[in-house]
This record gives sequence, structure tokens and C-alpha cells, in this order.
Amino acid sequence: MAQALEGLHVLDLTRVLAGPYATMILADLGADVIKLEMPISGDDARAFPPHINGESAYFMSLNRNKRSMTLNLKTTKGKELFKDMIRRVDVIVENFRPGTMERLGLGYDVLCEENSRLIYAAASGFGHTGPYSRRPAYDAIVQAMGGIMSITGQVGGTPTRVGSSIGDITAGMFTTIGILTALAHREKTGLGQKVDVSMLDSQVAILENAIARYTAAGEIPTPIGNRHPSITPFEPFDTKDGQLMVAVGNNVLWSTFCSAIAREELLDDPRFETNALRTANQSELRPLLAEPLLQKRTAEWRELFDTVGIPNGPINSVDEVVVDPQVVAREMIVEVDHPVAGKTSLPGIPIKLSATPGAVRQSAPLLGQHTVEILRDVLGYSPQQIADLEQHGIF
Amino acid sequence: MAQALEGLHVLDLTRVLAGPYATMILADLGADVIKLEMPISGDDARAFPPHINGESAYFMSLNRNKRSMTLNLKTTKGKELFKDMIRRVDVIVENFRPGTMERLGLGYDVLCEENSRLIYAAASGFGHTGPYSRRPAYDAIVQAMGGIMSITGQVGGTPTRVGSSIGDITAGMFTTIGILTALAHREKTGLGQKVDVSMLDSQVAILENAIARYTAAGEIPTPIGNRHPSITPFEPFDTKDGQLMVAVGNNVLWSTFCSAIAREELLDDPRFETNALRTANQSELRPLLAEPLLQKRTAEWRELFDTVGIPNGPINSVDEVVVDPQVVAREMIVEVDHPVAGKTSLPGIPIKLSATPGAVRQSAPLLGQHTVEILRDVLGYSPQQIADLEQHGIF
Repeated sequence: MAQALEGLHVLDLTRVLAGPYATMILADLGADVIKLEMPISGDDARAFPPHINGESAYFMSLNRNKRSMTLNLKTTKGKELFKDMIRRVDVIVENFRPGTMERLGLGYDVLCEENSRLIYAAASGFGHTGPYSRRPAYDAIVQAMGGIMSITGQVGGTPTRVGSSIGDITAGMFTTIGILTALAHREKTGLGQKVDVSMLDSQVAILENAIARYTAAGEIPTPIGNRHPSITPFEPFDTKDGQLMVAVGNNVLWSTFCSAIAREELLDDPRFETNALRTANQSELRPLLAEPLLQKRTAEWRELFDTVGIPNGPINSVDEVVVDPQVVAREMIVEVDHPVAGKTSLPGIPIKLSATPGAVRQSAPLLGQHTVEILRDVLGYSPQQIADLEQHGIF
Repeated sequence: MAQALEGLHVLDLTRVLAGPYATMILADLGADVIKLEMPISGDDARAFPPHINGESAYFMSLNRNKRSMTLNLKTTKGKELFKDMIRRVDVIVENFRPGTMERLGLGYDVLCEENSRLIYAAASGFGHTGPYSRRPAYDAIVQAMGGIMSITGQVGGTPTRVGSSIGDITAGMFTTIGILTALAHREKTGLGQKVDVSMLDSQVAILENAIARYTAAGEIPTPIGNRHPSITPFEPFDTKDGQLMVAVGNNVLWSTFCSAIAREELLDDPRFETNALRTANQSELRPLLAEPLLQKRTAEWRELFDTVGIPNGPINSVDEVVVDPQVVAREMIVEVDHPVAGKTSLPGIPIKLSATPGAVRQSAPLLGQHTVEILRDVLGYSPQQIADLEQHGIF
């Protein structure tokens, strides 16, 4: 079955996380992604632990479905070859610090002269405009500056970094959306454009109601802990062998819940009659619920609550996530055979398309694995030309 | 200037967060999004506090640039009218619990008979397949089940929910990517398809290196706190008046950093000679750095570190985020005039397109504000037909 983005040619200069995440999504959905890497070292992430037979699990999880070509962009011949490629691709993606491509003489203004249909996507820490544009950023820094740390953590506790690099990942996702949007526009006009996404902007864009709460009500949001600010009970409880998140969203569910935990007497307690009262009196209510919840194992509660329709879920650790029946049924953990690392497990594809489903077709490439193939098949170079380039250390 | 998605007609049945976030991105980039709401009540989020002159700030922040039409889908006439609209739009988006549209007789199989070009996007808690498909989910539940809580929090501390609803938001973003991908495919084939995105899948997809660490090395990730697991110092420090995140990624920066904080003697300390040693001896190093950092205010350190090139950033609260010079320069907080609420501030658009920039063109709609206009202009109904529908309580 054909894939949706088949025929879309992407030249991928990205490293580490934000950019590679964007091009991974495109590759998963069928695009031909050519990952351009510096000879010898390649993507920095190739060095990130843990390694399996010398191959980085981190790198492998972000670069499946891509081809790797090495090219030294600091050489004149390398730049020429690069421009030759630019004329044959639809999209270029980079996540250098702003100014880097310009210093190489390969900025957007230069490249769009070579190919007016080119979509040039840049993911960076602070974006290509504004006073911080040229500053270096890391995920931890934009999580700090973007406000999400200030609302994450235990109530009254210290601001807390989100445990996955969502500063990078959401920037990667917005970059993908920008590329596909520019593509839709190009279908109508034949013209490419530049897509500029910053990690800091992306953090602001996912702050959700925190911005509304502050700008509308003047309230400065603080770490909200694990409970819902206005629905009760809507929080995790300890069980006999773990924890369980319970979400009792209305009075019908409250009645069901009290029966399920054998605490029907709470239904007659005036302190807990409505959600507003349960929320106001949460500190009195919580111990009365915590005690019965401790009496059964998480799996027992889940079965009981699922049967009667109370929204609930365990707090899974990663080893539990990867074997969860729903995660497995949705193919969100896939196995792929890597020529050096052997069979490895990777996250699956969260976008399920009925007619043109994405697929993890191949493992991440070895450094420069496809250089010769691309020079020959994409650029049409002769064996003599290729040998010549190799001799000059261009790849 | 034209917008990239101009001419894309989206019928939006979504409520609350995940779905509205997806259609907001489309609307921000130029799509015509018609928000279909139940008469009288409308989107549940209209009731979410805080309110300004009775208008929910939460709702307003997610539904700008959309038009609102009311329609009772439980009536026969309402269903007919709905199918009439389906024949005229490109995309339908819904985030009901799976099975809801089928019970209304308006499932994907029915609707694609009406319009083979239709792209049908569904965002749900667990997805449209698999054993948990029909179960209710909330952000807190998928954050718990999807593993991100298990890696967020202080070291040795309790699993912590991310302070914004990234379970919803990332599902919304993947839904947008799915829609635009299906659109690219339709350009080539003329055929629509179904896009099925689940909040749980989306959580797995953003777990990043946690899955690689576990599946490759067998290590079950736990809350990692605020410091980098393998780079030191790369963590927040208290200052005289707040906190500052500092990221000293290599030995050159380490030398610069020690000079900047006037602790050159640390450069000769064998315990801290390399990054590996600094990481191994972090507990001894931290107090030696914490003491000088306490001596100046955050703004003073920022100026000093920015001058010498040490990556750093304050841990901003939301009131600080919205006035940050870079956030302001990138137009990530925009003001819009609402007919009832007056001037309100909203998050801006994180996807910056050079030729067809997105725009916050208008405030969120009042319930049913555009019903008559849409019946007349989109469906071509006569005043008599419209009056008739109104009399039957169809909208």
C-alpha cells in the first residue's frame, strides 16, 4: 500500500532531537528523508548512550526510515553538491543555531534562488528573529524560560522539569506541521517558503489554560501537583501494590465510586454532596478515600472500576507502558532489525491513517550508508565522479 | 497576504481541548473552521473558569479564528443538514469517545459514502481500535498510563503530572499532522481517509529516550529531577532573588563559567577536571557552585552569562513569560478584541511561515454566532428554509 508522503524528498541536516523528530514523522509517513551528516562524526546523537553493539539506542529511535549520506559542507565542492541536491528536493530541514547556514553561504535566501519550490524549515532554540535569536538553547533552558516548569511539580514544591524533552519534541512537531502547511500552499501556488519554529515559542504554545488563567484572572499559576484543580476526586491514590489515577467527574460517577469502594455512607455526608463541596473539602475527603483504596491491588481496582465505568488508570513505569495491552494493540512499540545492533524496540507511529498507514520500514542508517547510492540514483553521478569526490574527502 | 490553508473547509465537532487544539492550528494557518456545537450548551469548555463578562478565557484561547454554528445532531433534520455540510467540506474533526458518531448514524463509513474526498479525523483517549478503545480518558489518566508521570518529578520523589495537559495537546498536534498528511495524499489521489489519533499513543510517542533506555539497557527510568543525567553542571541554581538554569556543556564552557562566578580554583581541582568527573562528583561540586550563584540577582547573572556565552535561562513564572522580550518579539502573546469579553490576551502562533504567516484574525465565536450566515452562504439555504429549521429547534 502506498504511503501518504511517498514522493516527498526531504534533505535533512538536523541533529540530536527537535529536527530529527520532525523528519522522523515525515519519514514514518512515507517521505524519502536523506539525512546529511558530517563525515566521520555524524549526528552528535550517535554518541549518546546507551549503545547496542556500538549503535546508540537514542539515535536509532529517532532516525529509522531515513537514509544517511555524509557530506562536508565546509568545502567548495561540498557546497556545490549540496546546491545540486537542493534543486532536486522538496524540503530542507535544519536545527542549527540561527546564522549557521548563512555563514556557510547556504542561507534560505541563497537556496531559494536555486529552487523556488523549496520549503526551508528551521527549528531552533529561540527562532530566527528577536533579541535572543543567536543564543544557544537546550531543552532544560526553554522548559525553564517557557513557564512549563513553573506549573509542574508538587503543590507548594519546587518547579519541575518535564521528564521527557518536550521543549525539543513539541518544536519538532510544530516544524512538521509547518512543513506540511507550506506544502499545501505550494500545491496551489508552486512556491516554497521558510518555516521558522522556536523551542521557546513552542513552550508558550503548550501552556494551555495557564496563560488564560493569568491574563484573564491575574492569577500566577504555580505547580499544581497531581490533582485536578476543580474536580474531586480526580487524583492518584496508593493501592496495595502501586498507584491508581481516578477521575470522578460528576455526581453519578461519585455515587458509583462510593459503592465500588464500599463507602456508601459518604453519599449522605453533606461535606461531599456536590463536586464543589468535594473540592472545597478535599483535605477531609482524601483520607476517607485513601484508606479503602489501599486495601486492593491496582489490577483489582482497575477491573472493578472498568466494569462500573469509572475513569481510571495506573501510573505506569516505562516497563509497564511497553507491555500495556492497548499500547501493544495499537503497535506503539515496534521491533526493527538493525544490521549491527540486531533487533531493537522503538516507539511506534501515533498517527493512524486508514488508507495509507505509516510504517517503520527500516532501521536507522549507519553513518554514510547511502552516500554512494544517493550520489548515483538521486544526483546521477558517474562512478568516476563519485570516486573523484571521495578522493577529495567531500564525503 | 493569503494564508496557507485558505480554502480548506473544516467541520469541527470537537470539544474541550485535544480536538479544539488541532482545529485551532488549522484555523490559525488560514483554514475555514466551522465549529458545530449543541444548541444551548455548546462546547463544555464554555463553562470552564475563569470567565470575563461571562465568556470563558479557556474557551476563548482555543477557539479564536473559528466560526460557531449550532446544530442538534440527534434530530433527523439535523442529521440531514449535517450530511449536506459533509458534502461541502474537506475535513471533519471530532474528539468524541469512539462509537459516538456510529451511534448517531454518522460514522466514517457513512460519511465517506457522502464524500469520498472527506478527511475524517478522530482524536480520542485510547484510539478507535484495541481493548481500551471505548473507555473514557482524561489528560491525567493518559499521563499516568503513558509513562510520562513516572519520569517526571524530583529524584527519589513521587511521579508527577506535567502541569499543562500535554496528553490532550500532543494528541491535538498529531491529529493536525495526520490531517495535513491525508491532505497531501488527497492532492495526488483525490481520496480522503480516516485519521485516528489517541492520547495514550501520543504519550508513548513523546517518551523520547526513556523507551530507548529501557528497551536497550533494561533500565527502568524514574523521575530525573531538574538536572541533566550525564552533563554537569546542567541544572538550576538559586540566585539572590530567584532561580537560574545553567547549562555548561563542555570544558571550554566550564572554564568560562568558573571565571564568571570567580571560582577559578575549581579548574585545578582534579575532582572536576572532566565532564565525566563533574557528573560523578556532582554532590561535592554543587554546593561549591551554589554559594557564589546566591550572591547576585538572576538578571545580573543572565547579563554576565549571556555576555560570555554560557547557555542559561531563568525559571519564569507565567507572568514573566508573557513579558519576556523574546516572547514579545515573536508575537507569542497576542491581543484580540472579543465582542463581549473585550480585549483579551491569547497565546500566539508558534509556526512562523515567511510567505503566508498565520494570524489571529478574530476572537472566539459566541455560541451559534455564525449559524445563519453558514446556512445561507455555505449551504445556500433560503430565508424560508432557515426559519423553518429554527422553528423545528434544529439549531
